[in-house]
Amino acid sequence: MFQNVMPRYEILSQDALATLDAAWRRLVSEIGVEFVSDRAIEMFRAAGQKVEDHTVFLDPEFVLEQVAKAPREFDVQARNPERSVHIGGDSMVFGAVYGPPFVRQGDVRRDGTMEDYRNFLKLAQSFDVLDSAGGVVNEPNDTPLDSRHLDMTYALQTLTDKIYMGNVVSGVNAADTIAMGAILFGGRDKIEETPCSISLINCNSPLRWDDRMLDALFEYAAAGQPVVLTPFILMGAMSPVTIPAALVQQIAEALSGIALAQLIRPGCPVIFGSFLSNIDMQSGSPTFGTPESGIGLLCTGQIARHFGLPFRTGGGLTSSQLPDAQAGYEALMTLMPTFLAGTNWVMHTAGWLDGGLVASYEKFVVDCQITEMLQHEFKPLEIDEGSIAFDAHQEVGHGGHFLGAMHTMERFRTCFYRPFLSSSDNYEKWMRGGALDAAARAGKIATAKIEAYEPPPIDEAIRLELEEYVVRRRAELGD
Amino acid sequence: MFQNVMPRYEILSQDALATLDAAWRRLVSEIGVEFVSDRAIEMFRAAGQKVEDHTVFLDPEFVLEQVAKAPREFDVQARNPERSVHIGGDSMVFGAVYGPPFVRQGDVRRDGTMEDYRNFLKLAQSFDVLDSAGGVVNEPNDTPLDSRHLDMTYALQTLTDKIYMGNVVSGVNAADTIAMGAILFGGRDKIEETPCSISLINCNSPLRWDDRMLDALFEYAAAGQPVVLTPFILMGAMSPVTIPAALVQQIAEALSGIALAQLIRPGCPVIFGSFLSNIDMQSGSPTFGTPESGIGLLCTGQIARHFGLPFRTGGGLTSSQLPDAQAGYEALMTLMPTFLAGTNWVMHTAGWLDGGLVASYEKFVVDCQITEMLQHEFKPLEIDEGSIAFDAHQEVGHGGHFLGAMHTMERFRTCFYRPFLSSSDNYEKWMRGGALDAAARAGKIATAKIEAYEPPPIDEAIRLELEEYVVRRRAELGD
Repeated sequence: MFQNVMPRYEILSQDALATLDAAWRRLVSEIGVEFVSDRAIEMFRAAGQKVEDHTVFLDPEFVLEQVAKAPREFDVQARNPERSVHIGGDSMVFGAVYGPPFVRQGDVRRDGTMEDYRNFLKLAQSFDVLDSAGGVVNEPNDTPLDSRHLDMTYALQTLTDKIYMGNVVSGVNAADTIAMGAILFGGRDKIEETPCSISLINCNSPLRWDDRMLDALFEYAAAGQPVVLTPFILMGAMSPVTIPAALVQQIAEALSGIALAQLIRPGCPVIFGSFLSNIDMQSGSPTFGTPESGIGLLCTGQIARHFGLPFRTGGGLTSSQLPDAQAGYEALMTLMPTFLAGTNWVMHTAGWLDGGLVASYEKFVVDCQITEMLQHEFKPLEIDEGSIAFDAHQEVGHGGHFLGAMHTMERFRTCFYRPFLSSSDNYEKWMRGGALDAAARAGKIATAKIEAYEPPPIDEAIRLELEEYVVRRRAELGD
Repeated sequence: MFQNVMPRYEILSQDALATLDAAWRRLVSEIGVEFVSDRAIEMFRAAGQKVEDHTVFLDPEFVLEQVAKAPREFDVQARNPERSVHIGGDSMVFGAVYGPPFVRQGDVRRDGTMEDYRNFLKLAQSFDVLDSAGGVVNEPNDTPLDSRHLDMTYALQTLTDKIYMGNVVSGVNAADTIAMGAILFGGRDKIEETPCSISLINCNSPLRWDDRMLDALFEYAAAGQPVVLTPFILMGAMSPVTIPAALVQQIAEALSGIALAQLIRPGCPVIFGSFLSNIDMQSGSPTFGTPESGIGLLCTGQIARHFGLPFRTGGGLTSSQLPDAQAGYEALMTLMPTFLAGTNWVMHTAGWLDGGLVASYEKFVVDCQITEMLQHEFKPLEIDEGSIAFDAHQEVGHGGHFLGAMHTMERFRTCFYRPFLSSSDNYEKWMRGGALDAAARAGKIATAKIEAYEPPPIDEAIRLELEEYVVRRRAELGD
């Protein structure tokens, strides 16, 4: 897995951090945070926090005490031990896009299906740059709603051998996901010892945690499964129109959710979440890959480190409706700060299109290309006698070329990163090859990867047990 | 003009810098640098440097003494004083692509013409994000070769009121450019006082400065016009295949050229140049927007600051044959490090396509979009009571929205950067608008800008004098 040992790019001064710090304290204590869950409210009340209806007025010191119980770093196991990951520190872990109801392939945009879902899992399994298929790579709209989580979890567990995300639609769904994890990893004690899933708990920003998400949080936290407490902020709509205000709100929301997770199970692994962009103030549309989101991302990393927490940001976000030039620059406009900030858990790494409404086959490949480039760029430079290559200059002299130099011969196979999608063919060769743009080439790569896909081996007894669980629970759920 | 007061992203340790420092000293003194110019050789010999044929074995301390004579920062005047620029420090100055023989517009790739050249100057004049049209935005292949520089300089001086680059094909061309600058700015003394052009002097890497470029250097340096001493390095061909070796060679080449400029005219404004990418070691093709070039760029900034020199890197480089997703991510893969490094003079900011062989109308607009986004991203965050917006939270409460909040109403017009090319339309609206991709929209913007172009006012007597100079010199040159 990828370790980012390059410097972090930090843009907040200590004064700025202190101002943000004072402001979130005021927000949680004076405005408070709403938890639409009687269980949560009772826990906060029992812990001595002031409660009115479903609003908790939090003592900032109490929040920090809870936050301090969370581990700074932790492991998540995959069923293939080589695919297990470490969350926190210099580690960066990459998962695919999460949530799109639609799918785009070539010129066709349509409802996502279970076949699409399986295809994307195959792609996620095929690209080494991804540590996880994520969870909801697309909504499989042709499967029954109540039991869909069973089919998706089964697919994640069998079509990939990487870590996966847990279903969060309800507490029931979360319990099913945990039960299936227990089957796959040999018992609930095994996954409580080392978790096997990461689950996304979104805040209904501003300052409200809703009941269904909290029900899922209760299940996962109780089972010691990592949760990503994520303020969902499109500035101008879910937060004030200024970046500092959004950062303050983000701290208040993330830390309040993390505090609850620690009340449920002290020491539960958590991730400081961030989904931070802005709307177009003229149209109201969400916009992605914006300058404001880039700044927010860099600050978020610095803030999460300030609290000693692993954090989530980033991905190949774009507003573009097509995998075109805009999609290319907007994706990198988020992915580059993702690396500069050293994000620990990168959601939406690959496949995001059209404001997140669409999972795109072509964009999936484009994003994997960009991420692989960045993984090469964010490697420390080795400077030594050999890399200085004085001997090569002695051999080549003035105005010569190094193509045949001994130093080149020894290193030419591995010296530079070689992209799998980007073309540097000269114009004539490119024309002979069909004059395909990057999106068309990406589509071909996606198709070839899916065709060449081979399922990772799985113990047949375990697979059968998972299948039986799915069949039984589907019947119980009435689908 | 744009000031980058954000932190610099520096990845070289002090140890690494010291290693590079020792290595360039060894290179210039033991391998030496070739200057294919008797004048240059005589100057170095007279200054006490060891010379064999056209190779100068430079004393590193002598080089540093010369380099120390160069100003750390300087101004370049435009004929519209509001367009004058400052080179060095936190200033970043942006010029268009330089050098392409071909042009691409829509589906057509063809030889560049004088009409294309004028069109690109109109675009460069129209986009505020550019401080300069550069020089050779495309080769106007339908004009006579010997007098082309006259037509191009005249176009730069009349169609734009921004700073421009000087012709460097020969000493004669340089002298004409300087003479035309003297006409435009009221006499040679005026442009010696504050220069009016920047000229690109490329090294024939490795370690050779060729005669025609040096002839141009002699003219410009003698007139006190800034020169960009640029090692032209595609790693693997013009340098060893390792980044540290390329950096060392770049220092040796740039500093040796700068030393010559200072011998010609002590205090002559210079820019530490860098054109650093790599070839594909399997095909031999140049590649741009690569991880290696990004790392090289970041290091170059740090190295130039180490020597107290303004520097040139960057631009919207790409290998892509089309303004597609690859062009988008590769352009940003160079432009983002350009901002992270705080590049003072950014060549190739807009229009570069197909490894620099093509000036693209559409890509020009895409790059201006990207650069404008980055100029907004690299602004310091203002954190104060107003931007923290506690009152907005009091107004909105839990789970509400901020669209109508007072704080929003006061700021919504200017709070977020609004792109001119990127689309965040919802799918239905985008379909109704013709379902255009970013390249198609960029083409429309380019056409509209050229149609709406209005020439900046110029004193008719000066324009006539320039015209007469061009006519007379064209006749003298036999065209």
